[in-house]
Amino acid sequence: MRARDHGFAPGLLPPGAANAITDVAGVRVGHANHVADHTGVTAVWPHGGDPWSDWYFCATSALNGAGELTGTNEIEEWGCQEVPVLLTGTPYVGAVHAAVTHTLTARQPRIGRDDVIIPVVGECDPSSWCDVRDGPEPDDALVARALDTAAGGSIEEGQVGAGVGMETFGFAGGIGTASRVVGGHTLGVLVLSNFGLTERFVLCGRPVGIELAGETASSGEGSCICLVATDAPLLPHQLRRLARRPFLGLGRTGSHGSHGSGEISFAWTTANLMARDEAAEVRDLRMLRDDLLSLLFAACAEAAEEAVLNALCAGRDLRGYDGQVLRRFPAERFAVT
Amino acid sequence: MRARDHGFAPGLLPPGAANAITDVAGVRVGHANHVADHTGVTAVWPHGGDPWSDWYFCATSALNGAGELTGTNEIEEWGCQEVPVLLTGTPYVGAVHAAVTHTLTARQPRIGRDDVIIPVVGECDPSSWCDVRDGPEPDDALVARALDTAAGGSIEEGQVGAGVGMETFGFAGGIGTASRVVGGHTLGVLVLSNFGLTERFVLCGRPVGIELAGETASSGEGSCICLVATDAPLLPHQLRRLARRPFLGLGRTGSHGSHGSGEISFAWTTANLMARDEAAEVRDLRMLRDDLLSLLFAACAEAAEEAVLNALCAGRDLRGYDGQVLRRFPAERFAVT
Amino acid sequence: MRARDHGFAPGLLPPGAANAITDVAGVRVGHANHVADHTGVTAVWPHGGDPWSDWYFCATSALNGAGELTGTNEIEEWGCQEVPVLLTGTPYVGAVHAAVTHTLTARQPRIGRDDVIIPVVGECDPSSWCDVRDGPEPDDALVARALDTAAGGSIEEGQVGAGVGMETFGFAGGIGTASRVVGGHTLGVLVLSNFGLTERFVLCGRPVGIELAGETASSGEGSCICLVATDAPLLPHQLRRLARRPFLGLGRTGSHGSHGSGEISFAWTTANLMARDEAAEVRDLRMLRDDLLSLLFAACAEAAEEAVLNALCAGRDLRGYDGQVLRRFPAERFAVT
Amino acid sequence: MRARDHGFAPGLLPPGAANAITDVAGVRVGHANHVADHTGVTAVWPHGGDPWSDWYFCATSALNGAGELTGTNEIEEWGCQEVPVLLTGTPYVGAVHAAVTHTLTARQPRIGRDDVIIPVVGECDPSSWCDVRDGPEPDDALVARALDTAAGGSIEEGQVGAGVGMETFGFAGGIGTASRVVGGHTLGVLVLSNFGLTERFVLCGRPVGIELAGETASSGEGSCICLVATDAPLLPHQLRRLARRPFLGLGRTGSHGSHGSGEISFAWTTANLMARDEAAEVRDLRMLRDDLLSLLFAACAEAAEEAVLNALCAGRDLRGYDGQVLRRFPAERFAVT
Repeated sequence: MRARDHGFAPGLLPPGAANAITDVAGVRVGHANHVADHTGVTAVWPHGGDPWSDWYFCATSALNGAGELTGTNEIEEWGCQEVPVLLTGTPYVGAVHAAVTHTLTARQPRIGRDDVIIPVVGECDPSSWCDVRDGPEPDDALVARALDTAAGGSIEEGQVGAGVGMETFGFAGGIGTASRVVGGHTLGVLVLSNFGLTERFVLCGRPVGIELAGETASSGEGSCICLVATDAPLLPHQLRRLARRPFLGLGRTGSHGSHGSGEISFAWTTANLMARDEAAEVRDLRMLRDDLLSLLFAACAEAAEEAVLNALCAGRDLRGYDGQVLRRFPAERFAVT
Repeated sequence: MRARDHGFAPGLLPPGAANAITDVAGVRVGHANHVADHTGVTAVWPHGGDPWSDWYFCATSALNGAGELTGTNEIEEWGCQEVPVLLTGTPYVGAVHAAVTHTLTARQPRIGRDDVIIPVVGECDPSSWCDVRDGPEPDDALVARALDTAAGGSIEEGQVGAGVGMETFGFAGGIGTASRVVGGHTLGVLVLSNFGLTERFVLCGRPVGIELAGETASSGEGSCICLVATDAPLLPHQLRRLARRPFLGLGRTGSHGSHGSGEISFAWTTANLMARDEAAEVRDLRMLRDDLLSLLFAACAEAAEEAVLNALCAGRDLRGYDGQVLRRFPAERFAVT
Repeated sequence: MRARDHGFAPGLLPPGAANAITDVAGVRVGHANHVADHTGVTAVWPHGGDPWSDWYFCATSALNGAGELTGTNEIEEWGCQEVPVLLTGTPYVGAVHAAVTHTLTARQPRIGRDDVIIPVVGECDPSSWCDVRDGPEPDDALVARALDTAAGGSIEEGQVGAGVGMETFGFAGGIGTASRVVGGHTLGVLVLSNFGLTERFVLCGRPVGIELAGETASSGEGSCICLVATDAPLLPHQLRRLARRPFLGLGRTGSHGSHGSGEISFAWTTANLMARDEAAEVRDLRMLRDDLLSLLFAACAEAAEEAVLNALCAGRDLRGYDGQVLRRFPAERFAVT
Repeated sequence: MRARDHGFAPGLLPPGAANAITDVAGVRVGHANHVADHTGVTAVWPHGGDPWSDWYFCATSALNGAGELTGTNEIEEWGCQEVPVLLTGTPYVGAVHAAVTHTLTARQPRIGRDDVIIPVVGECDPSSWCDVRDGPEPDDALVARALDTAAGGSIEEGQVGAGVGMETFGFAGGIGTASRVVGGHTLGVLVLSNFGLTERFVLCGRPVGIELAGETASSGEGSCICLVATDAPLLPHQLRRLARRPFLGLGRTGSHGSHGSGEISFAWTTANLMARDEAAEVRDLRMLRDDLLSLLFAACAEAAEEAVLNALCAGRDLRGYDGQVLRRFPAERFAVT
């Protein structure tokens, strides 16, 4: 059951067919874990082709940057990327970074000869629930599996892939996604949700966290990586603006961007792809008229809010490495009929 | 009547004595207009002394920077300022900038000899309601009056000073303020509120904008300048973080940071003042431990949300220059008892 | 006589026909002063049309932002502008800002009705030499004159317009310009040069400042506004990168970006103009392939270095308001034959 | 032989005892390679204690961010760090990131329990000379060796540690360092130098690259990571300003920040350390008076320029994996006596 199945439908705009980031044509998501109760890897292919051959415009932003999204310097500089996006637990950023380097290099003989790549790896910290000192670390095979099983359509949410061990407002969080259709364009958000103080949780405007506060032991710190995809023909400076909007959705659920939180976004468009081997000196591009951005901004805030709710609604109980239990969010208790 | 008088009390933290930015000791606010129905000037003194003699740490941020806050380059570079803050209508930024330069220079003989000043002037656009082509422009006397009548305690809100002609979610907006007390520190927000699409207005979690949408002709574009003051001993890089938080409060009222909106913040601390004529090579400063910032961040989002509601609740009908009426927000219709 | 007339020709790339920012087709520059020895105004029209009707892509950067370039928030947000650029002395930013608002509003009836404008005004501080407390302030007529006399072709340099009272490495500086032609594109730089410690002056690699150090009373603080125009089809994120390059040229002349210096740039392209009244939802644009940017970056650093040298070589003695003399740079002493 | 041994002494300020970043008391540098001709790892301990226990203020900047410095989001947000700095080749960022995570976690039992760490790993691309597809990758042992052999005093420069395979202006570059003493404070720079088009090389103001251009096959793209340490008591926002200054030194050697270059800096102070387990709510800190920063800025530009020259002067011939030879810079040909 997802948020809408309980009547939790934030915002005014309609979702896409799968109500997922994969509603943006070409976007594919894959999850992989070594074991069910330990943080693994989630991979996102940004468009239907090979990003190494066809670069895509992108941008990042941070409400509170106490986290990592590798590749940020290059994204800021170039406004484009050439690799898929990987998500994992904080202590595994290096392992996943190395693995995606190995995997992509093995498959593309020009990498390391013509040019090198700089992976994009985001993280949240699952160490309250998963034993990151002794648990299994992602390796090349795991990362390859996430990349290779990535698919469109519906996405598994909650405690899966990079989402295992993630906590949201004191309950089991993790992967969540949602989308909006607006002005002929589709925009989707995928979150790795690991933030929020229980007492501050707001469910579609209802301050339910106040009544839930005694039921958890939430610290309130944590992070939330927000991926935003759209098929609207945006330029990098427009994407940089769009990348600030998921935080409004997080704020509506109760985030204030805690000191220790990595609330970091990565936004891209599947339009305006740029062929690596372009011979012409000038590329022809398309740009959505600026005044039409407002609706995309609204869509982004709405989809981010719903993606967090979907992460919560998809949760399951997780027994932590020290025996404590991270409980699923009791969505049915608040269902709107 | 203010928002709390109607039962609109967003957030969990308690307000200060006046529930205003002036709860931060030393902060003073003054309003001045030529005529009641035309945009004037609001002046804010950042601390109890003379900022030219005692510099104050500050920072800015923007959710959507389609507006002006002069002095931004210097604030970003130095992390401090030496002037009061002025607010006005967009077409009057130059006039107010010149007037504050004239006024401060006349009063301080070292200005223009030892050093020059770079004023801080923020704006929102009242041109839908006020005739900015032919209406009276602020002059030196008006700016001096705003500076000289500034006081602590309760602040007049709504359609006053820079607030005249400002629209919020389709109703009369303008000046609003609120505060929070947390961890022994006080934080206050003052907004110049001129943003929001009626149908997106959320009142303490209630989507009341949907039912109000037919009653206004709101374009939804517009701006909101957010001033944030605190007595917590912060450093400039901590203030830069704080400056991002009022936007979460705006988001909770329904903002998505429209394309044409100048949602720009300016945050400062009254602690850690720095004497201009310091002889020692090294200054002694104090810094709030970073992990204690989270509560200030929450306080800032809450106070910003309430400041917008206060701007709305303080409104009055304004007859625009073309005969149309900008109606006051009918707060009583939604009062919680 | 200009720098090249003395044999000072920094860099490897060839200049354009006028070796001036006006080599970029459509760019026009105008100067106006009330009196010869007091800081006036310099106006730059960014392209051959009306920027209010045809928006132009632009970006800013700062090596040391202790100065003002109004409009920075909007430029950062939108990546485009709709107004000409004005330069003046620091205390006159407000007066010029008001004057350009008045002038453009008077000429375009839609301003203040359909939309408002946010002027772009940059400054350097002439107060060591000009009496900014009592000297004549720019007014509407002066700003209109600078705007209306703007022309292409050769530009008057040195102590003229906004350049009066400006000091560079202890000598008379002010307005300077230069250009480069590269890869079929033209790039021009115009500086308002008011920076540099005499002993650090490097003239085409020669540390001549060391021998000149005893001849001036330079404080070394000060500022340098750098305008960069090109006809290469760049996007805003590419212009943001370009905007960082004039500082490399300043550095080669001896700048280290002093604490009190406003070394701020504004870069734009005359390609990719965007019609305000565009009806289509999507604009067609062109983007120079990224790998071709390197030469433009080199051109920008070279032109900025030469523009500073041109400002120095165009200087004349200026008797300051307190009777001291700001001496012209003795270029002939270092001429290369 | 170092640059000064050939008479190449850029700038006006005196170097410290070792003319190295290690002149800043407590800073230690270690190099490790698997094999002499393949890129390894360089480790820098930022102060004399354990950064995990005593956090240090820091900041980053980029002239051209086409590279990687992991941890940038956290550095930007918090203005401090808790880990040492590692440098390596681009394809090895993930491996080194994982290794430093493993090593520090193994040694500090609270990592992964109380908190997680986000490593700081910078890179340049050696793939023109080293076989990064098949060559040996850094592992935990190599990274531990670099960390454990780090020492103060003189530093090995050129083709060593992370410096192997790095090219500068068409010749063998790599690690270089220099320092300046100014106003009672010491500032040191360490570069990983891998940038520059031969024809643009400027040696202490002399355009020697023009005569050398035919002797190399330089592409001119590449990167330069610049580490800047000082014992001056700076705050994070002051360090952010300082972090922009090494690029002026690079510019003086001939950089224009090519499109493909990662000219990225990381600056920190050994003063103002912050105990992790501080119990007091407020920390006492010290801040150098802002007007005294100018000399530090000049020192930083000078030291960065000299560090690049030292990298060049320390070079040796390197036979690349494809049989080509990366030649040492013939410093003696240009020696000043």
